[in-house]
Amino acid sequence: MSAINHWLLPEGIEEVLPEQAWRIEQLRRGLLDTYRGWGYQLIMPPMIEFLESLLTGAGNDLDLQTFKLIDQQSGRLLGLRADMTPQAARIDAHSLKREAPTRLCYLGTVLHTRPDGFAGSRSPLQVGAELFGHAGMESDLEIIGLMLETLRLTGIETVHMDLGHVGIFRGLARAAGLDGEAETDLFDVLQRKAIPEIEGLLGDMDLNAAQREGFARLAELHGGREVLDAARERYRGIAPVQEAVDNLAAIGEAVHARWPELPVNYDLAELRGYAYQTGVVFAAFTPGCGQEVARGGRYDKIGEIFGRARPATGFSADLKTLMALGRTAAASDGAIYAPADGDSGLNDRVRELRSQGERVIQGLPGEAGGAQALGCDRRLELRDGVWEVRNL
Amino acid sequence: MSAINHWLLPEGIEEVLPEQAWRIEQLRRGLLDTYRGWGYQLIMPPMIEFLESLLTGAGNDLDLQTFKLIDQQSGRLLGLRADMTPQAARIDAHSLKREAPTRLCYLGTVLHTRPDGFAGSRSPLQVGAELFGHAGMESDLEIIGLMLETLRLTGIETVHMDLGHVGIFRGLARAAGLDGEAETDLFDVLQRKAIPEIEGLLGDMDLNAAQREGFARLAELHGGREVLDAARERYRGIAPVQEAVDNLAAIGEAVHARWPELPVNYDLAELRGYAYQTGVVFAAFTPGCGQEVARGGRYDKIGEIFGRARPATGFSADLKTLMALGRTAAASDGAIYAPADGDSGLNDRVRELRSQGERVIQGLPGEAGGAQALGCDRRLELRDGVWEVRNL
Repeated sequence: MSAINHWLLPEGIEEVLPEQAWRIEQLRRGLLDTYRGWGYQLIMPPMIEFLESLLTGAGNDLDLQTFKLIDQQSGRLLGLRADMTPQAARIDAHSLKREAPTRLCYLGTVLHTRPDGFAGSRSPLQVGAELFGHAGMESDLEIIGLMLETLRLTGIETVHMDLGHVGIFRGLARAAGLDGEAETDLFDVLQRKAIPEIEGLLGDMDLNAAQREGFARLAELHGGREVLDAARERYRGIAPVQEAVDNLAAIGEAVHARWPELPVNYDLAELRGYAYQTGVVFAAFTPGCGQEVARGGRYDKIGEIFGRARPATGFSADLKTLMALGRTAAASDGAIYAPADGDSGLNDRVRELRSQGERVIQGLPGEAGGAQALGCDRRLELRDGVWEVRNL
Repeated sequence: MSAINHWLLPEGIEEVLPEQAWRIEQLRRGLLDTYRGWGYQLIMPPMIEFLESLLTGAGNDLDLQTFKLIDQQSGRLLGLRADMTPQAARIDAHSLKREAPTRLCYLGTVLHTRPDGFAGSRSPLQVGAELFGHAGMESDLEIIGLMLETLRLTGIETVHMDLGHVGIFRGLARAAGLDGEAETDLFDVLQRKAIPEIEGLLGDMDLNAAQREGFARLAELHGGREVLDAARERYRGIAPVQEAVDNLAAIGEAVHARWPELPVNYDLAELRGYAYQTGVVFAAFTPGCGQEVARGGRYDKIGEIFGRARPATGFSADLKTLMALGRTAAASDGAIYAPADGDSGLNDRVRELRSQGERVIQGLPGEAGGAQALGCDRRLELRDGVWEVRNL
């Protein structure tokens, strides 16, 4: 191994250098303070867990995206978290065990085996909020509101939203009598929009022509409110699908009423990334990024395996992506230089300035460069026995 | 696998629940603001890197503590960071490449294959600061000052400090003509204070009686300032050792002068956890914890493999340990309940209260429990057309 390789980073694994890091820190604080203001409590789930705990109910996609390693202590397989939502569900179901609605938020690195998302990252900084214990659309609306507020705080001004409902697909699957495995297979290929695979799979299944058509035509149902009427018409008589469409329509109306300026696109076949979702799903888009910048939805049963099947809804996003696309002011980097050869009066003055929120950099004897090389725009100078701040 | 296993966490891997998480967040902000005030710039090194990059110059201990996995993209071996100091050195040497002194700080999770440290954790929250590009003792003193300030901010009031100097051991090794491998072997066993192994290893080495005695007696050299005189006497004529003792004495005097109340213990054989150090080393202790709660020192050559052998000094600590041992006020958890059946005036009032820093939790129709179950101590009530905050 030559020396030059020692500083290369693996593809999609980023380091965050000073200027960027401080902007992230400021955004982090703004977001977490906002979530706190809405009653969302911060949790810090572990970076690694037993694999089956991380992947419970999370589907094949997350499995492939999860780095695995052996725990030398237990001999068991561990995973590096690739998504913090199932971790939040585990904490709600097992660690907190409250009856009342529980609002949780988190912000931390997740790791993916393969590049995806904006700029092909394998180490997004996932930020999100989850609301457990309430099944009504009011909690979905609260989560949508918090997602939009998150985008606003990160300086993303132009947003449009896709709205869908996983219950439509699930209702069709139940009506067609698909078993769990067949439903999962079909969900996977629909999710990947792999048309030949979808048709191949539907051809292999024990379905009548209307059922096959029902699944295949799902992909055509996208657009304005008229899509909902078309779905009601097409899936007439399939009660769970009608319920899902009604739920989606009610949420859509409330979204239009609350955010009249927000363009909304209904997409009934949009299942990408919604492995554990059960109800309404939503994704936010902004110009300059071909993929969604935030997404979420309802996932009512994920906690079952941890002992409690609580209703749940939430959203998440990658803060690095939001920062790359949004407009936020860079941190001011001005600083005051304190000369190396000071007295105890200088030390007192430095302490005082720092306590007032100033950055004060202590000069070091014989250092390379000087105040300006350190990014200072002012320096402390002794005038008539007083240490004064002077512009450079 | 039974359901009950799905919520167990691996040994030494912790989740941080709401109350604790917010205290950590508050400490994080206080510490990073302080480091910023001292001119230390935040970096966010990656969670995973190529293994050889993480372990460069870091010694056998860190290798054993590092989780390894295969990168499916490159086929190469990756490591989960077990220590962020070598990452900071890589960033200084390769990514920033400044001539002037560079001050960096970081705060993030590191992972260890085996439990160690306080409470047997395998997922410490490492916080630290590093100063690159200055070889004089002034930078060591600045780092010691920042370490003590860190302990003060986390509410750790009673502190004492161990001071040592790796140059004493390294000078003895050079004088005895040990090759690199023999020096590393001896460093490892001395570090582990494995007396039979030390004696066995010394017996096997091609050393004269005085040299063997010199290494073996190192362990006796601990105590007050008199230890330094004893070392000067014992290692008379070994110039690098005399220089190291002089450097340690000068730093010790400056520490006594600057922090006269701080008890200092000199320990010339204390090498635990100092695999990459080259000069002065220091560790802070507090009652209630048998191990050091923060440590650091000089490590002048670690950047060499990344292309630049810059002088370097720094410290680090585990924020979870500091929080467990320190006294910091818990976050106030008061909140205002907003009833589910409000009007648009209620929405405006909620927004206003949140922008003033209040926590306001939106009621949801049919939710289990009520305002108090959600941790609210006040609620919004409509009186004469005005939404007022009332105590519960």
